[in-house]
Amino acid sequence: MRISELSRRSGVSVTTIKYYLREGLLPPGRQTAATQAEYDDQHLHRLRLIRALTGVRGLSVGATREVLDALTEHADDTHLLLGVALGSVQVGGKPAEGAAESAESAEVAALVQELEWCVHDAAPARAVLAETLGSLRALGLPLDLHTLLPYARLAERTAVLDLDQLDGLDDPLEAAERALLLTVLLEPALMALRRMAQENESARRHLP
Amino acid sequence: MRISELSRRSGVSVTTIKYYLREGLLPPGRQTAATQAEYDDQHLHRLRLIRALTGVRGLSVGATREVLDALTEHADDTHLLLGVALGSVQVGGKPAEGAAESAESAEVAALVQELEWCVHDAAPARAVLAETLGSLRALGLPLDLHTLLPYARLAERTAVLDLDQLDGLDDPLEAAERALLLTVLLEPALMALRRMAQENESARRHLP
Repeated sequence: MRISELSRRSGVSVTTIKYYLREGLLPPGRQTAATQAEYDDQHLHRLRLIRALTGVRGLSVGATREVLDALTEHADDTHLLLGVALGSVQVGGKPAEGAAESAESAEVAALVQELEWCVHDAAPARAVLAETLGSLRALGLPLDLHTLLPYARLAERTAVLDLDQLDGLDDPLEAAERALLLTVLLEPALMALRRMAQENESARRHLP
Repeated sequence: MRISELSRRSGVSVTTIKYYLREGLLPPGRQTAATQAEYDDQHLHRLRLIRALTGVRGLSVGATREVLDALTEHADDTHLLLGVALGSVQVGGKPAEGAAESAESAEVAALVQELEWCVHDAAPARAVLAETLGSLRALGLPLDLHTLLPYARLAERTAVLDLDQLDGLDDPLEAAERALLLTVLLEPALMALRRMAQENESARRHLP
Protein backbone atom coordinates (compact mmCIF):
# COMPACT_ATOMS: atom_id res chain seq x y z
CA MET A 1 0.00 0.00 0.00
CA ARG A 2 1.03 3.61 -0.48
CA ILE A 3 1.82 5.86 2.48
CA SER A 4 -1.59 7.56 2.11
CA GLU A 5 -3.40 4.23 2.58
CA LEU A 6 -1.09 3.31 5.49
CA SER A 7 -2.08 6.62 7.06
CA ARG A 8 -5.78 6.02 6.48
CA ARG A 9 -5.71 2.46 7.84
CA SER A 10 -3.56 3.28 10.88
CA GLY A 11 -5.13 6.60 11.73
CA VAL A 12 -1.62 8.12 11.92
CA SER A 13 -1.04 11.21 9.78
CA VAL A 14 1.35 11.05 6.81
CA THR A 15 3.51 13.70 8.47
CA THR A 16 3.86 11.59 11.61
CA ILE A 17 4.57 8.43 9.60
CA LYS A 18 7.37 10.29 7.77
CA TYR A 19 8.72 11.42 11.12
CA TYR A 20 8.76 7.83 12.40
CA LEU A 21 10.54 6.74 9.19
CA ARG A 22 13.20 9.43 9.66
CA GLU A 23 13.67 8.50 13.31
CA GLY A 24 14.07 4.82 12.40
CA LEU A 25 11.01 3.70 14.40
CA LEU A 26 9.40 2.41 11.25
CA PRO A 27 11.48 0.45 8.71
CA PRO A 28 11.52 1.95 5.21
CA GLY A 29 9.01 0.68 2.65
CA ARG A 30 9.95 -1.04 -0.58
CA GLN A 31 11.05 1.72 -2.96
CA THR A 32 8.96 1.61 -6.16
CA ALA A 33 9.99 4.94 -7.63
CA ALA A 34 12.25 7.82 -6.69
CA THR A 35 9.60 9.37 -4.41
CA GLN A 36 7.31 6.41 -3.83
CA ALA A 37 7.41 3.37 -1.58
CA GLU A 38 5.17 0.42 -0.82
CA TYR A 39 4.20 -0.53 2.74
CA ASP A 40 2.66 -3.73 4.06
CA ASP A 41 0.82 -5.14 7.07
CA GLN A 42 4.07 -5.29 9.05
CA HIS A 43 4.19 -1.51 8.87
CA LEU A 44 0.61 -1.29 10.01
CA HIS A 45 1.33 -3.56 13.00
CA ARG A 46 4.42 -1.61 13.88
CA LEU A 47 2.55 1.71 13.72
CA ARG A 48 -0.01 0.35 16.18
CA LEU A 49 2.76 -0.68 18.51
CA ILE A 50 4.42 2.74 18.26
CA ARG A 51 1.11 4.44 19.03
CA ALA A 52 0.61 2.19 22.04
CA LEU A 53 4.11 2.82 23.36
CA THR A 54 4.14 6.59 22.83
CA GLY A 55 0.47 7.31 23.43
CA VAL A 56 -0.81 4.95 26.04
CA ARG A 57 2.39 4.09 27.80
CA GLY A 58 3.77 7.59 27.35
CA LEU A 59 7.27 6.65 26.22
CA SER A 60 9.48 9.12 24.40
CA VAL A 61 10.38 8.45 20.77
CA GLY A 62 13.88 7.41 21.86
CA ALA A 63 12.60 4.99 24.50
CA THR A 64 10.08 3.60 22.01
CA ARG A 65 12.88 2.86 19.55
CA GLU A 66 14.82 1.04 22.26
CA VAL A 67 11.80 -1.11 23.13
CA LEU A 68 11.16 -1.88 19.45
CA ASP A 69 14.80 -2.80 18.92
CA ALA A 70 14.73 -5.04 21.97
CA LEU A 71 11.57 -6.75 20.71
CA THR A 72 13.24 -7.50 17.36
CA GLU A 73 16.43 -8.64 19.01
CA HIS A 74 14.70 -11.13 21.30
CA ALA A 75 12.20 -12.43 18.76
CA ASP A 76 13.26 -16.02 19.48
CA ASP A 77 12.80 -15.88 23.25
CA THR A 78 9.11 -15.59 24.06
CA HIS A 79 9.59 -15.05 27.78
CA LEU A 80 12.12 -12.28 27.28
CA LEU A 81 9.98 -10.78 24.52
CA LEU A 82 6.95 -10.64 26.76
CA GLY A 83 9.16 -9.24 29.50
CA VAL A 84 10.17 -6.35 27.27
CA ALA A 85 6.59 -5.80 26.12
CA LEU A 86 5.16 -5.96 29.61
CA GLY A 87 7.83 -3.66 31.01
CA SER A 88 9.24 -6.18 33.46
CA VAL A 89 12.52 -6.25 31.57
CA GLN A 90 14.25 -2.90 31.66
CA VAL A 91 15.35 -1.70 28.22
CA GLY A 92 18.06 0.85 27.51
CA GLY A 93 20.58 2.57 29.73
CA LYS A 94 18.44 3.12 32.80
CA PRO A 95 19.18 0.41 35.37
CA ALA A 96 16.61 -0.19 38.10
CA GLU A 97 17.73 2.87 40.02
CA GLY A 98 19.71 1.68 43.02
CA ALA A 99 16.66 -0.22 44.30
CA ALA A 100 17.13 1.58 47.63
CA GLU A 101 16.95 -1.13 50.27
CA SER A 102 13.93 0.26 52.08
CA ALA A 103 11.83 -1.60 54.59
CA GLU A 104 9.14 -1.73 51.94
CA SER A 105 11.32 -3.33 49.28
CA ALA A 106 12.18 -6.05 51.81
CA GLU A 107 8.45 -6.52 52.37
CA VAL A 108 7.89 -6.89 48.64
CA ALA A 109 10.68 -9.47 48.50
CA ALA A 110 9.04 -11.37 51.35
CA LEU A 111 5.70 -11.28 49.53
CA VAL A 112 7.21 -12.58 46.28
CA GLN A 113 8.92 -15.36 48.21
CA GLU A 114 5.75 -16.29 50.05
CA LEU A 115 3.91 -16.45 46.73
CA GLU A 116 6.74 -18.47 45.17
CA TRP A 117 6.63 -16.15 42.20
CA CYS A 118 9.41 -15.98 39.67
CA VAL A 119 9.98 -12.21 39.37
CA HIS A 120 13.21 -10.56 38.25
CA ASP A 121 15.01 -8.67 41.01
CA ALA A 122 15.07 -5.52 38.91
CA ALA A 123 11.41 -5.68 37.80
CA PRO A 124 10.07 -2.10 37.98
CA ALA A 125 6.81 -3.41 39.44
CA ARG A 126 8.66 -4.28 42.65
CA ALA A 127 9.64 -0.64 43.10
CA VAL A 128 6.11 0.55 42.32
CA LEU A 129 4.68 -1.77 44.94
CA ALA A 130 7.29 -0.77 47.53
CA GLU A 131 6.62 2.90 46.87
CA THR A 132 2.88 2.45 47.32
CA LEU A 133 3.38 0.61 50.58
CA GLY A 134 5.54 3.51 51.69
CA SER A 135 2.87 6.07 50.79
CA LEU A 136 0.20 4.13 52.64
CA ARG A 137 2.42 3.82 55.69
CA ALA A 138 3.14 7.56 55.63
CA LEU A 139 -0.60 8.17 55.58
CA GLY A 140 -1.10 5.98 58.62
CA LEU A 141 -2.55 3.03 56.68
CA PRO A 142 0.18 0.38 56.71
CA LEU A 143 -0.66 -2.76 54.71
CA ASP A 144 0.85 -5.97 55.92
CA LEU A 145 1.73 -9.15 54.04
CA HIS A 146 -1.39 -10.79 55.37
CA THR A 147 -3.60 -8.12 53.73
CA LEU A 148 -1.70 -8.12 50.45
CA LEU A 149 -1.64 -11.89 49.94
CA PRO A 150 -5.27 -12.35 48.85
CA TYR A 151 -4.90 -9.42 46.44
CA ALA A 152 -1.81 -11.09 45.01
CA ARG A 153 -3.69 -14.38 44.58
CA LEU A 154 -6.36 -12.57 42.58
CA ALA A 155 -3.62 -10.90 40.50
CA GLU A 156 -2.27 -14.38 39.81
CA ARG A 157 -5.61 -15.40 38.34
CA THR A 158 -5.86 -12.18 36.35
CA ALA A 159 -2.43 -12.91 34.85
CA VAL A 160 -3.62 -16.35 33.75
CA LEU A 161 -6.48 -14.65 31.86
CA ASP A 162 -3.95 -12.21 30.36
CA LEU A 163 -1.56 -14.90 29.18
CA ASP A 164 -4.42 -17.04 27.86
CA GLN A 165 -5.17 -14.27 25.41
CA LEU A 166 -1.68 -14.58 23.93
CA ASP A 167 -1.99 -18.31 23.38
CA GLY A 168 -2.10 -19.52 19.82
CA LEU A 169 -0.26 -16.49 18.44
CA ASP A 170 2.62 -18.06 16.55
CA ASP A 171 4.41 -14.88 15.64
CA PRO A 172 6.28 -13.86 18.81
CA LEU A 173 6.33 -10.21 17.75
CA GLU A 174 2.58 -10.27 17.33
CA ALA A 175 2.29 -11.85 20.78
CA ALA A 176 4.50 -9.09 22.18
CA GLU A 177 2.38 -6.41 20.53
CA ARG A 178 -0.77 -7.97 21.89
CA ALA A 179 0.76 -8.36 25.34
CA LEU A 180 1.74 -4.74 25.43
CA LEU A 181 -1.61 -3.47 24.25
CA LEU A 182 -3.57 -5.73 26.56
CA THR A 183 -1.43 -4.97 29.57
CA VAL A 184 -1.27 -1.26 29.17
CA LEU A 185 -4.73 -0.63 27.79
CA LEU A 186 -6.52 -3.02 30.09
CA GLU A 187 -5.23 -1.25 33.20
CA PRO A 188 -7.85 1.50 33.19
CA ALA A 189 -10.53 -1.06 32.32
CA LEU A 190 -9.57 -3.29 35.23
CA MET A 191 -9.55 -0.34 37.60
CA ALA A 192 -12.96 0.71 36.28
CA LEU A 193 -14.28 -2.80 36.89
CA ARG A 194 -12.94 -2.62 40.44
CA ARG A 195 -14.71 0.71 41.04
CA MET A 196 -17.98 -0.65 39.74
CA ALA A 197 -17.59 -3.83 41.77
CA GLN A 198 -16.91 -1.71 44.87
CA GLU A 199 -20.08 0.26 44.29
CA ASN A 200 -22.01 -2.96 43.90
CA GLU A 201 -20.44 -4.48 47.02
CA SER A 202 -21.14 -1.31 49.00
CA ALA A 203 -24.78 -1.38 47.85
CA ARG A 204 -25.03 -5.04 48.88
CA ARG A 205 -23.72 -4.25 52.35
CA HIS A 206 -25.20 -0.84 53.09
CA LEU A 207 -28.43 -0.44 51.19
CA PRO A 208 -31.63 -1.66 52.81
CA MET B 1 -1.82 21.12 69.02
CA ARG B 2 -0.30 24.23 67.47
CA ILE B 3 -0.06 24.68 63.72
CA SER B 4 3.63 23.83 63.84
CA GLU B 5 2.93 20.44 65.38
CA LEU B 6 0.08 19.84 62.93
CA SER B 7 2.58 20.54 60.17
CA ARG B 8 5.17 18.21 61.65
CA ARG B 9 2.70 15.37 62.20
CA SER B 10 1.00 15.69 58.80
CA GLY B 11 4.08 16.41 56.75
CA VAL B 12 2.26 19.39 55.22
CA SER B 13 4.08 22.72 55.41
CA VAL B 14 2.68 25.53 57.58
CA THR B 15 2.33 27.69 54.46
CA THR B 16 0.22 25.03 52.74
CA ILE B 17 -1.90 24.49 55.87
CA LYS B 18 -2.59 28.24 56.01
CA TYR B 19 -3.55 28.14 52.33
CA TYR B 20 -6.00 25.27 52.98
CA LEU B 21 -7.46 27.25 55.92
CA ARG B 22 -7.94 30.31 53.71
CA GLU B 23 -9.54 28.22 50.96
CA GLY B 24 -11.91 26.62 53.43
CA LEU B 25 -10.62 23.09 52.86
CA LEU B 26 -9.60 22.84 56.48
CA PRO B 27 -11.96 24.11 59.20
CA PRO B 28 -10.44 26.80 61.46
CA GLY B 29 -8.82 25.73 64.73
CA ARG B 30 -10.03 26.77 68.15
CA GLN B 31 -8.77 30.33 68.65
CA THR B 32 -6.66 30.55 71.83
CA ALA B 33 -5.16 33.99 71.26
CA ALA B 34 -5.29 36.73 68.66
CA THR B 35 -2.73 34.98 66.46
CA GLN B 36 -2.89 31.45 67.83
CA ALA B 37 -5.19 28.49 67.36
CA GLU B 38 -5.40 24.92 68.55
CA TYR B 39 -5.87 22.03 66.16
CA ASP B 40 -6.86 18.42 66.86
CA ASP B 41 -6.85 14.95 65.33
CA GLN B 42 -9.80 15.86 63.10
CA HIS B 43 -7.55 18.39 61.40
CA LEU B 44 -4.86 15.78 60.99
CA HIS B 45 -7.33 13.36 59.40
CA ARG B 46 -8.67 16.02 57.13
CA LEU B 47 -5.17 17.02 56.01
CA ARG B 48 -4.47 13.44 55.03
CA LEU B 49 -7.65 13.34 53.03
CA ILE B 50 -6.79 16.61 51.28
CA ARG B 51 -3.35 15.30 50.39
CA ALA B 52 -4.88 12.10 49.00
CA LEU B 53 -7.41 13.99 46.93
CA THR B 54 -5.05 16.63 45.57
CA GLY B 55 -1.90 14.56 45.36
CA VAL B 56 -2.81 11.02 44.51
CA ARG B 57 -6.12 11.58 42.82
CA GLY B 58 -4.96 14.82 41.25
CA LEU B 59 -8.04 16.91 42.04
CA SER B 60 -7.92 20.70 41.98
CA VAL B 61 -8.38 22.58 45.23
CA GLY B 62 -11.91 23.51 44.16
CA ALA B 63 -12.86 19.92 43.31
CA THR B 64 -11.32 18.75 46.59
CA ARG B 65 -13.49 21.20 48.55
CA GLU B 66 -16.57 19.89 46.75
CA VAL B 67 -15.72 16.29 47.62
CA LEU B 68 -15.02 17.21 51.26
CA ASP B 69 -18.31 19.10 51.50
CA ALA B 70 -20.16 16.16 49.99
CA LEU B 71 -18.53 13.80 52.48
CA THR B 72 -19.66 15.95 55.39
CA GLU B 73 -23.13 16.37 53.95
CA HIS B 74 -23.72 12.64 53.53
CA ALA B 75 -22.13 11.56 56.80
CA ASP B 76 -25.25 9.58 57.72
CA ASP B 77 -25.48 7.55 54.51
CA THR B 78 -22.61 5.09 54.36
CA HIS B 79 -23.32 3.93 50.82
CA LEU B 80 -23.49 7.46 49.43
CA LEU B 81 -20.44 8.45 51.45
CA LEU B 82 -18.42 5.59 50.03
CA GLY B 83 -19.76 6.49 46.60
CA VAL B 84 -18.39 10.02 46.94
CA ALA B 85 -15.09 8.74 48.32
CA LEU B 86 -14.70 6.07 45.66
CA GLY B 87 -15.60 8.48 42.87
CA SER B 88 -18.65 6.55 41.73
CA VAL B 89 -20.90 9.41 42.76
CA GLN B 90 -20.18 12.54 40.76
CA VAL B 91 -19.70 15.62 42.90
CA GLY B 92 -20.09 19.20 41.79
CA GLY B 93 -21.36 20.78 38.59
CA LYS B 94 -19.94 18.33 36.09
CA PRO B 95 -22.63 15.87 35.08
CA ALA B 96 -21.50 12.58 33.49
CA GLU B 97 -20.83 14.26 30.18
CA GLY B 98 -23.63 13.36 27.84
CA ALA B 99 -22.76 9.68 28.22
CA ALA B 100 -22.62 9.49 24.41
CA GLU B 101 -24.61 6.40 23.53
CA SER B 102 -21.75 4.59 21.85
CA ALA B 103 -21.70 0.91 20.94
CA GLU B 104 -19.21 0.50 23.78
CA SER B 105 -21.40 2.07 26.43
CA ALA B 106 -24.14 -0.36 25.41
CA GLU B 107 -21.64 -3.18 25.83
CA VAL B 108 -20.78 -1.95 29.31
CA ALA B 109 -24.47 -1.82 30.17
CA ALA B 110 -24.84 -5.40 28.92
CA LEU B 111 -21.89 -6.49 31.05
CA VAL B 112 -23.27 -4.83 34.19
CA GLN B 113 -26.62 -6.49 33.56
CA GLU B 114 -25.05 -9.89 32.99
CA LEU B 115 -23.13 -9.50 36.26
CA GLU B 116 -26.27 -8.31 38.04
CA TRP B 117 -24.25 -5.48 39.50
CA CYS B 118 -25.87 -2.48 41.10
CA VAL B 119 -23.96 0.40 39.47
CA HIS B 120 -25.25 3.93 39.06
CA ASP B 121 -26.02 4.88 35.44
CA ALA B 122 -23.78 7.93 35.71
CA ALA B 123 -20.84 6.15 37.40
CA PRO B 124 -17.67 7.52 35.76
CA ALA B 125 -16.18 4.01 35.72
CA ARG B 126 -18.72 3.04 33.07
CA ALA B 127 -17.35 5.72 30.75
CA VAL B 128 -13.76 4.71 31.47
CA LEU B 129 -14.51 1.11 30.60
CA ALA B 130 -16.39 2.08 27.41
CA GLU B 131 -13.54 4.33 26.35
CA THR B 132 -10.99 1.56 26.85
CA LEU B 133 -13.08 -0.88 24.83
CA GLY B 134 -13.21 1.75 22.10
CA SER B 135 -9.40 2.20 22.11
CA LEU B 136 -8.82 -1.54 21.96
CA ARG B 137 -11.28 -1.87 19.08
CA ALA B 138 -9.57 0.98 17.20
CA LEU B 139 -6.28 -0.89 17.62
CA GLY B 140 -7.77 -4.03 16.15
CA LEU B 141 -8.10 -5.83 19.50
CA PRO B 142 -11.81 -5.88 20.26
CA LEU B 143 -12.72 -7.41 23.63
CA ASP B 144 -16.06 -9.11 23.87
CA LEU B 145 -18.32 -9.68 26.85
CA HIS B 146 -17.15 -13.27 27.04
CA THR B 147 -13.52 -12.13 27.56
CA LEU B 148 -14.41 -9.40 30.05
CA LEU B 149 -16.64 -11.50 32.29
CA PRO B 150 -13.91 -13.49 34.08
CA TYR B 151 -12.01 -10.23 34.70
CA ALA B 152 -15.16 -8.74 36.19
CA ARG B 153 -15.61 -11.76 38.44
CA LEU B 154 -12.09 -11.26 39.78
CA ALA B 155 -12.84 -7.55 40.28
CA GLU B 156 -15.86 -8.61 42.31
CA ARG B 157 -13.64 -10.59 44.66
CA THR B 158 -11.15 -7.73 44.86
CA ALA B 159 -13.96 -5.40 45.89
CA VAL B 160 -14.93 -7.76 48.69
CA LEU B 161 -11.36 -7.52 50.02
CA ASP B 162 -11.58 -3.73 49.68
CA LEU B 163 -14.83 -3.41 51.56
CA ASP B 164 -13.69 -5.87 54.22
CA GLN B 165 -11.00 -3.39 55.15
CA LEU B 166 -13.61 -0.75 55.93
CA ASP B 167 -15.54 -3.02 58.24
CA GLY B 168 -15.56 -2.14 61.89
CA LEU B 169 -14.91 1.55 61.29
CA ASP B 170 -17.75 3.23 63.15
CA ASP B 171 -17.05 6.76 62.09
CA PRO B 172 -18.44 7.00 58.54
CA LEU B 173 -16.09 9.86 57.68
CA GLU B 174 -13.15 7.75 58.75
CA ALA B 175 -14.48 4.91 56.60
CA ALA B 176 -14.76 7.30 53.67
CA GLU B 177 -11.23 8.52 54.19
CA ARG B 178 -9.94 4.97 54.33
CA ALA B 179 -11.98 3.97 51.29
CA LEU B 180 -10.57 6.83 49.29
CA LEU B 181 -6.99 6.16 50.29
CA LEU B 182 -7.26 2.44 49.76
CA THR B 183 -8.98 2.75 46.42
CA VAL B 184 -6.80 5.40 44.96
CA LEU B 185 -3.48 4.38 46.46
CA LEU B 186 -3.95 0.67 45.95
CA GLU B 187 -4.43 1.09 42.21
CA PRO B 188 -0.73 1.26 41.35
CA ALA B 189 -0.05 -1.57 43.80
CA LEU B 190 -2.66 -3.82 42.21
CA MET B 191 -1.32 -3.05 38.75
CA ALA B 192 2.20 -3.82 39.98
CA LEU B 193 0.99 -7.14 41.38
CA ARG B 194 -0.58 -7.92 38.01
CA ARG B 195 2.70 -7.16 36.21
CA MET B 196 4.65 -9.39 38.56
CA ALA B 197 2.06 -12.14 38.28
CA GLN B 198 2.26 -11.88 34.48
CA GLU B 199 6.02 -12.26 34.58
CA ASN B 200 5.64 -15.29 36.81
CA GLU B 201 2.94 -16.80 34.60
CA SER B 202 5.06 -16.17 31.49
CA ALA B 203 8.03 -17.88 33.17
CA ARG B 204 5.83 -20.83 34.08
CA ARG B 205 4.68 -21.21 30.49
CA HIS B 206 7.75 -20.31 28.48
CA LEU B 207 10.85 -21.08 30.49
CA PRO B 208 12.30 -24.59 30.25
